[in-house]
Amino acid sequence: MRLTLLGTGDARQVPVYGCQCVACSAAQANQDLRRLPCSALIECAGQRWLIDSGLTDLTERFPPRSLNGILQTHYHADHAQGLLHLRWGQGLVIPVHGPADPEGLADLYKHPGILDFSQPFAAFETRALGELHVTALPLAHSRPTFGYLLEGDGQRVAYLTDTVGLPDATCEFLQRQPLDVLILDCSMPPQPQPPRNHNDLTLALESIDQLRPAKAVLTHIGHTLDAWLMEPPQRLPGHVLIGRDGMTL
Amino acid sequence: MRLTLLGTGDARQVPVYGCQCVACSAAQANQDLRRLPCSALIECAGQRWLIDSGLTDLTERFPPRSLNGILQTHYHADHAQGLLHLRWGQGLVIPVHGPADPEGLADLYKHPGILDFSQPFAAFETRALGELHVTALPLAHSRPTFGYLLEGDGQRVAYLTDTVGLPDATCEFLQRQPLDVLILDCSMPPQPQPPRNHNDLTLALESIDQLRPAKAVLTHIGHTLDAWLMEPPQRLPGHVLIGRDGMTL
Repeated sequence: MRLTLLGTGDARQVPVYGCQCVACSAAQANQDLRRLPCSALIECAGQRWLIDSGLTDLTERFPPRSLNGILQTHYHADHAQGLLHLRWGQGLVIPVHGPADPEGLADLYKHPGILDFSQPFAAFETRALGELHVTALPLAHSRPTFGYLLEGDGQRVAYLTDTVGLPDATCEFLQRQPLDVLILDCSMPPQPQPPRNHNDLTLALESIDQLRPAKAVLTHIGHTLDAWLMEPPQRLPGHVLIGRDGMTL
Repeated sequence: MRLTLLGTGDARQVPVYGCQCVACSAAQANQDLRRLPCSALIECAGQRWLIDSGLTDLTERFPPRSLNGILQTHYHADHAQGLLHLRWGQGLVIPVHGPADPEGLADLYKHPGILDFSQPFAAFETRALGELHVTALPLAHSRPTFGYLLEGDGQRVAYLTDTVGLPDATCEFLQRQPLDVLILDCSMPPQPQPPRNHNDLTLALESIDQLRPAKAVLTHIGHTLDAWLMEPPQRLPGHVLIGRDGMTL
C-alpha cells in the first residue's frame, strides 16, 4: 500500500492570492513550497483510489481508466471541485464513495455525468476495494465528513481531514489497534481560542496523543501554520511530520 | 478595445475526457486545438475585465490588482468555477457584475471572500467601466444569463453565450446599431431536432443573419462541432470565423 499526498493545503492554498507573508512569499519563489488542495492517492495491489477531488486537473493527471474510483471525505469546494469538470467525460464510469450529503457540490448530483454517487458510505462501514479495506470514520466538521481507515499490505493508515478534534466514537474505534500512519488535519498554529471546523496544532497534537500512531503527518496546512513553522525553534515531536505535496508514505 | 478569447470550449471542453473522436484525438496531440472553459478578457483604456471565470488558474494568470473586475454571464460551473478558489485571496476586492441569480454557484454567496457580488446587472442596464460601456443583454438559457454589449474606442462588440437563439428584446436592441464583432454561442453542428440551451450551427447562423455584424466569431464549441468542421467542405460564410483559444479581436 502506497499513499501519496497530492495536495496538503487548506481551502486558501499556499501561497494565498495577494498575500505577502513569509510563507506565501517563499511559496511564490519556490514551487516545492506550494500547497495544492488537500488530496491523496492510495495505491494497493494494482488498484488506485483518489482521496478527494479538489485538484482541477484530474483529467490530465489521471488518464481514462487509471483510477478505480474516488473516496470523497466531503463536498466542500476545495475537496470536490475537480469533479465539476471530470464528470463530463465519456465511455467510463467513476464510482465516488463518500458521505451521504443532500447538498453535494453545486449541481453535481443533478448532472453527475460519468460519476456514480449511488453508494455513499455509512458511518463505520468497511468496504473491500480489491485488497484494500476502507472504513468510513465520522469527523467533526461543518458538513457531513468522513475520514478513512485504510488497511492493506499489513499496514493501517488513517486519513483524517477535515476535522476539529475527533468524535469520541471515531477516537475509540481507532484506539483499538495501533496505526502505522496517521494523516491529520492541522490547518493553523496554536490559537488563543478553540478553533472551529479545523484543528490548530494544539488540537492536532492532542489527537495524536490519543491515537499514538507510529508516525503522524500533518496536512490541510494553511499559510499561517507554514509561517509559524518557519520561525525557530522547531516545535514538533519527532514522530510528527509536516506533510508536503508529493510526499509518499 | 481588445478582446481575447481565453477559452472557447463548451462545458465538456475539448478534448472530452475519454473520447477518441477525430476532434478529441487531434486536440490530445496538439495543444493549439484544445478548448478551455468559455471566457474572454476585455481590455480598454488601461482597464482589464474578465468575462466569465471558468478557468481554474485565475490566480496564476492574473496577479493581484491586474484585473479591474469580472463580468459574469451566469453561474454554471464551467463559467464560474474559477471563483471557488479565487475568492480566498486577501488584501483586495474583486467586483463581479452578473445577473441576479439566487443560487449562484455552490457556496459562493455564503462565503464570497474577496468577491463583491453586491451590484448585479439589471436587464439592458448600461454601466461605464472606465471608458468601456457595458450593457447586459438577456439570453435564453437554463438559468439567468446575460450576454454583454461592449462599446469602447469606437467599436461595438457583442459577446453572447450561453444561449439558444436570442430573445426578441435582445435581438431588437442589437439591431438598432451595427456590430463590428459578434461573438456567439455555437456548441453543436446542425441538429435534426431544435437544440435546448445552446445554439447549433443552424440557429447560430440565423442569429448572425438577424444581427448582420461585420464579423461573427463562434465560441462555446463542443467536440462534435469540431469534428464536423474537420470534414470538408468548409460550410461557413466568409464573415463567420471559428473561435480559438488565444484569438484576439
